[in-house]
Amino acid sequence: MAENEEEKVKLLGVVGSPFVYRVQLALKLKGVQYELLEENLEHKSQLLLKYNPIHKKVPVLVHDENPITESLVILEYIEETWKGNPILPQEPYSRALARFWTKFIDEKCMSTIWKTATTLDEKEREKAIEESHEVLQILENELKDKFFGGETLGLVDIVGTCVAFWLPAIEQIVGLELLTSEKFPKLYNWTHQVLNHPFVKETLPPREPFLAAFKARIQILTPSK
Amino acid sequence: MAENEEEKVKLLGVVGSPFVYRVQLALKLKGVQYELLEENLEHKSQLLLKYNPIHKKVPVLVHDENPITESLVILEYIEETWKGNPILPQEPYSRALARFWTKFIDEKCMSTIWKTATTLDEKEREKAIEESHEVLQILENELKDKFFGGETLGLVDIVGTCVAFWLPAIEQIVGLELLTSEKFPKLYNWTHQVLNHPFVKETLPPREPFLAAFKARIQILTPSK
Ligand SMILES: N[C@@H](CCC(=O)N[C@@H](CS)C(=O)NCC(=O)O)C(=O)O
Ligand SMILES: N[C@@H](CCC(=O)N[C@@H](CS)C(=O)NCC(=O)O)C(=O)O
Repeated sequence: MAENEEEKVKLLGVVGSPFVYRVQLALKLKGVQYELLEENLEHKSQLLLKYNPIHKKVPVLVHDENPITESLVILEYIEETWKGNPILPQEPYSRALARFWTKFIDEKCMSTIWKTATTLDEKEREKAIEESHEVLQILENELKDKFFGGETLGLVDIVGTCVAFWLPAIEQIVGLELLTSEKFPKLYNWTHQVLNHPFVKETLPPREPFLAAFKARIQILTPSK
Repeated sequence: MAENEEEKVKLLGVVGSPFVYRVQLALKLKGVQYELLEENLEHKSQLLLKYNPIHKKVPVLVHDENPITESLVILEYIEETWKGNPILPQEPYSRALARFWTKFIDEKCMSTIWKTATTLDEKEREKAIEESHEVLQILENELKDKFFGGETLGLVDIVGTCVAFWLPAIEQIVGLELLTSEKFPKLYNWTHQVLNHPFVKETLPPREPFLAAFKARIQILTPSK
């Protein structure tokens, strides 16, 4: 079938965002070609404001000229639209568990870990470090196989890339050690499985420029660092 | 098929919780019989702690002895398990829109409106009232049909019961007028359609005891009221 203009898939995003990256990885797993329209979040495009008037955030997936926003909503859409290489199991209870853990990572992990890097108050920072340990311990206990999705990458792993890739970046920038092989052996091993997955390797932003940009962003938020 | 012990559906919950109520209404729409196991959240049962060790919250749906937590995850599970009377549309893009609005209501509405009742600081309270207006305006603009789900109650309406039932209760208790017919005619009309839906009528907690308990809860949080 000849691809016409309407069928094209576009993604409004920025390089280095864990929310945008989830969508990129899922599209890669599904073998869907797309055009990345890079946003400047300091000067948002008219297209972004038109497509996501409520939150004005990336990612926005545009398929057949229909805009979809909120990364977790987009991931469900991708799963329902392109059936190959499922990222959710088939059976309702297993799907519910995957959605539970996805929500847990989305709501608890990134914000808790982010606070360890950006909170200026020393007491609050210590609390954030403690909470990060708790969150990682919960994930450590849950991990049974090579991936959360079993033998192949699934929804939880895709969203979990914030732990596999963004967390080590934060550790390096602020000089913290959270996810160590001694404390969290299974999760530590999992991060390496994820980072060495060929599709992940191909789609992650190049490490050095990413680290420099990420460090600059953290420094703006924490002038003392 | 004779119903055996394992197939029974149980719901750990409390009467008067908008999160628990969502699940009750969805089960009613699907015609699923269940047993409500009432929790005392001041003294949580061993069953609750066993089934939801991470968040220790209600609702928990137990089906075939499998516990499912987080109301939105439970609603997706119900939709996938009992196919009759769908609460989500069939087509992926419409499903994505329904999920987007569900998430919007879940994350923005209840917490914003709740703050108008429980914030002691007068400035913050005014801000919460302003934000509640914004949120309601966004919903007013989105509502096209009798229900968000079209001619029948759907996922967005189910989760939206926090606006249709809990919001007027808050208005009455703290003496506020937010959702008026002048400002939000479509949404105002929608609340009445929802509250008059036979399944909603049958499942909502009786208004007077609910109001008394809800008022007591708000007063504990705001000793000055
Ligand atoms: N809940 C959203 C979060 C997306 C998000 O926070 N995106 C950031 C980039 S990492 C953004 O667009 N920020 C712009 C802004 O907040 O103005 C999702 O899952 O898609
Ligand atoms: N995100 C949860 C929220 C559930 C929730 O907040 N439940 C409250 C009752 S309304 C609860 O169990 N609170 C007990 C506690 O926080 O200890 C859901 O959607 O199910």
